[in-house]
Amino acid sequence: MKSCGIITKRNKPEALSLARDIAGWLSARGVKVLVEKEVAEQIGHPDHIDRDGIPARADLLIVLGGDGTLLSVARFSGVESIPVLGINLGGLGFLTEISKEETFPVLEKIMAGDFETEQRLMLKATILRRGEIIGESTVLNDIVINKGVLARIIDMETHIDGAYLTTFKADGLILATPTGSTAYSLAAGGPIVYPSLNSIIVNPICPHTITNRPLVVPDTATVKIILKTADQNVHITLDGQVGMPLQGGDVVEVHKAPGHIQLIRSPYKTYFELLRTKLRWGER
Amino acid sequence: MKSCGIITKRNKPEALSLARDIAGWLSARGVKVLVEKEVAEQIGHPDHIDRDGIPARADLLIVLGGDGTLLSVARFSGVESIPVLGINLGGLGFLTEISKEETFPVLEKIMAGDFETEQRLMLKATILRRGEIIGESTVLNDIVINKGVLARIIDMETHIDGAYLTTFKADGLILATPTGSTAYSLAAGGPIVYPSLNSIIVNPICPHTITNRPLVVPDTATVKIILKTADQNVHITLDGQVGMPLQGGDVVEVHKAPGHIQLIRSPYKTYFELLRTKLRWGER
Amino acid sequence: MKSCGIITKRNKPEALSLARDIAGWLSARGVKVLVEKEVAEQIGHPDHIDRDGIPARADLLIVLGGDGTLLSVARFSGVESIPVLGINLGGLGFLTEISKEETFPVLEKIMAGDFETEQRLMLKATILRRGEIIGESTVLNDIVINKGVLARIIDMETHIDGAYLTTFKADGLILATPTGSTAYSLAAGGPIVYPSLNSIIVNPICPHTITNRPLVVPDTATVKIILKTADQNVHITLDGQVGMPLQGGDVVEVHKAPGHIQLIRSPYKTYFELLRTKLRWGER
Amino acid sequence: MKSCGIITKRNKPEALSLARDIAGWLSARGVKVLVEKEVAEQIGHPDHIDRDGIPARADLLIVLGGDGTLLSVARFSGVESIPVLGINLGGLGFLTEISKEETFPVLEKIMAGDFETEQRLMLKATILRRGEIIGESTVLNDIVINKGVLARIIDMETHIDGAYLTTFKADGLILATPTGSTAYSLAAGGPIVYPSLNSIIVNPICPHTITNRPLVVPDTATVKIILKTADQNVHITLDGQVGMPLQGGDVVEVHKAPGHIQLIRSPYKTYFELLRTKLRWGER
Repeated sequence: MKSCGIITKRNKPEALSLARDIAGWLSARGVKVLVEKEVAEQIGHPDHIDRDGIPARADLLIVLGGDGTLLSVARFSGVESIPVLGINLGGLGFLTEISKEETFPVLEKIMAGDFETEQRLMLKATILRRGEIIGESTVLNDIVINKGVLARIIDMETHIDGAYLTTFKADGLILATPTGSTAYSLAAGGPIVYPSLNSIIVNPICPHTITNRPLVVPDTATVKIILKTADQNVHITLDGQVGMPLQGGDVVEVHKAPGHIQLIRSPYKTYFELLRTKLRWGER
Repeated sequence: MKSCGIITKRNKPEALSLARDIAGWLSARGVKVLVEKEVAEQIGHPDHIDRDGIPARADLLIVLGGDGTLLSVARFSGVESIPVLGINLGGLGFLTEISKEETFPVLEKIMAGDFETEQRLMLKATILRRGEIIGESTVLNDIVINKGVLARIIDMETHIDGAYLTTFKADGLILATPTGSTAYSLAAGGPIVYPSLNSIIVNPICPHTITNRPLVVPDTATVKIILKTADQNVHITLDGQVGMPLQGGDVVEVHKAPGHIQLIRSPYKTYFELLRTKLRWGER
Repeated sequence: MKSCGIITKRNKPEALSLARDIAGWLSARGVKVLVEKEVAEQIGHPDHIDRDGIPARADLLIVLGGDGTLLSVARFSGVESIPVLGINLGGLGFLTEISKEETFPVLEKIMAGDFETEQRLMLKATILRRGEIIGESTVLNDIVINKGVLARIIDMETHIDGAYLTTFKADGLILATPTGSTAYSLAAGGPIVYPSLNSIIVNPICPHTITNRPLVVPDTATVKIILKTADQNVHITLDGQVGMPLQGGDVVEVHKAPGHIQLIRSPYKTYFELLRTKLRWGER
Repeated sequence: MKSCGIITKRNKPEALSLARDIAGWLSARGVKVLVEKEVAEQIGHPDHIDRDGIPARADLLIVLGGDGTLLSVARFSGVESIPVLGINLGGLGFLTEISKEETFPVLEKIMAGDFETEQRLMLKATILRRGEIIGESTVLNDIVINKGVLARIIDMETHIDGAYLTTFKADGLILATPTGSTAYSLAAGGPIVYPSLNSIIVNPICPHTITNRPLVVPDTATVKIILKTADQNVHITLDGQVGMPLQGGDVVEVHKAPGHIQLIRSPYKTYFELLRTKLRWGER
């Protein structure tokens, strides 16, 4: 390993302090540290680089924060080419499963090449208005179409690989990756899908038709949603972070993204341990 | 019966046509017909009255439209004092269970005093900002606090009769009457509550804590919700019709309204038949 | 308070040891202690009484064990006339919310008359075969009709106050009190019903018709279930403890029991605290 | 096509009558018809063959009945090698989607080679007691471990590919194929999984731990369940048809069966149409 990017949650002293320690630890081992300007200034690092340029020049990406910070990294172009290590500064994340205390023991292992990565599927959403692409984004968790507070139920005509599925009449619709199955989709009654199962979850939010159930389809499918409601107050949200308003007639096309993100697995916890811990399966 | 108010869904020719027929039928039987100006003009009725004045001067209120039209009537002041007949012009409503075809046979029965009413609980919501009342409304179905599309999860600190229940972290919270249990609350996973059970349903929408379940409390309870999220993009909606934005710190107090609405029961269908028909219980 | 019954979970040394301490503590305060023979022998108490005779002669009933032990006490005849204190020797129960450590402080309060009781609704099930009563029982949690392992789905024709509700095609049917709403009914997707809401929960288990939802009806209702399946392998279970096989054509009639059990409330925890603790509402 | 097996639901006159017509139709086209003795006698067919011998000698298997009849065929050895056509004599099945009326038009197409098959995953369950195999079976829908009516909750220690998942405390556990996702698993709250998604659904029945959710894992996984409850009254059921009692300590190992069943697709209906029709998605 020759160079390592560090991305931190901004304005969080604890993250910056850990970033400084990691930067020192890596430099002492001859690894070049890549950080963006703002972080470089705050941790006293001599040089910096554009955030977007990091993946292309790093052999490893360390993300300090919570699942939200890691999700934002998933949208970087080129991130698929390098392993990503998420370190959680708060509790325990589904994506950032290394705790602050485990940081250096895990880095030792990584330096020694003793680590495993997990390929996580990402989805790409393309948004079209009157046939023109008006937005495009890649997500690691989910694409959510949601009605605004003043809207009544919205109608979403849904096709899978060109075949008509149904017109969901609901508060919204979630298209989630297996990774996203433990995020918002879980709150909306969706199943837990093992990260390596190549699939897309199609999960209506509060469907008016109560026989509508979450549907899991192969990730080779293209899911196409046509918003049938003329109501202005509908939005699409990508990984819960960025969004844009939709209009009646807009089309959202979802299929798997070309690359996968490579998450470094915790050497201490399995995915099932995460489920047991975060969902309190040991107790009622 | 001396006078009868007719409220119709506006701009719906079928409703106006039926209103004209009913007005003629009633006049022929010596019953004074009370309609608002707009309707009077459209059906050629000689006089009119303010919408709000109808309940005080009528012995019966006929509502032509769907459940939405009937819900709007529930907010009229004084509506509790007279029986209300809902006639459904579309499919079959939970509130408007008389079909167009059944109109005159049912009116015959009502004229003959051969009808039953069902007392339906209504809830009153009071909205306070820094201790001042900024809104107040009565609902027959539900009071819904809902996050806007761009908001993340919202925190709603909830107290029942002064005792702390929990702080729901969710997309929103529904407070429903038994009548409302078959409306939005059902889509959000709530139970069906028999109309005469004096109770309030407290039902979080897509709760982050997946052990949060719908809670049913006696209608003697006061439910108080304090919005803990400073996000501007939260709204309260009343019977899915009117709403207002909420700010962090705003308090919503909900308790039963002083009066009940008196719905005239269909002589042809029981509540259970409605459930079976509308929820397709006869089939898988 | 002149006399106090003590019921303990049998063959549990910890329970017997606590029973001995309580008996000593009460005797020292001039309160006569009533225990059954087996317990008297094991804790060295000079006299004993039939289990069933305890409620008639005691002013207070102390139950040592878990929720199961308390449920068994709810079937004693005459138990409605005296307050019942449940002490939990394991974790924390919904019914036995006093911990071992809290025993004597709580008993001090009770001796001083400083306690509150909560009236908990009980249900009475009457089982009829060809018009003859073949079984009868009172429950505090639930009446469950359940198919045997080899049976396919069973058909249960259900009437409420004489009106046909539906024929549930399911693995079984739960009729629960509000107290029982946090027991088996919760696992079967039922709502949480506040203990003082006078109601019966009608909750199908894994219904084939997925629009069947838990239904909550007033406790003034009589629920009648006719088993339409001729399969021999169907049982009715009462509070998860006693049961009997049902045959095709058997009728189960459920209505509220004449008396309520009087549970002494914990001075330290509210019902909502119990919910939060037992259902882990503080955490995801 | 040279020879065709016909399997019918027994003792159903309508099925036998259709079997006779099909046999005649096929013979007239020079196709040898293979039926078992009982059916041969009832439809007057000149010769017969053992049921188990049919797949090895037929080029096509026609199944007359409902989904249950087709499930029973899935257990025939060698059935994976030939296309299977399910004709439904009752309503509409998820597996037998050709109606009686469509029989001959569909057979015409099949004779002309104008048909598509869908490979449906099957699961193999191996049951071990003290290390010895005591049972083995292949299923097309599901493997269900279920408590008896008198049993309380059962504990099922579950491992996936050797990693501990959790110990489900529940009424039972369903291991379903995508095909089985619309059968019993759906009633137990499971998701709908598209037939071609290579996966196994792990779905607890009425779990005591209400955060237990259906889990979907790749079909390359081996799921191992150890029954931890000593209760005698636990059974394993295979496709809802055959079963055997389990004892404490018994191990159930589930992995994908070596072959897939080849279902002939209806030329008239897509899978999504089936969902819409059978789950009434067009209506509330």
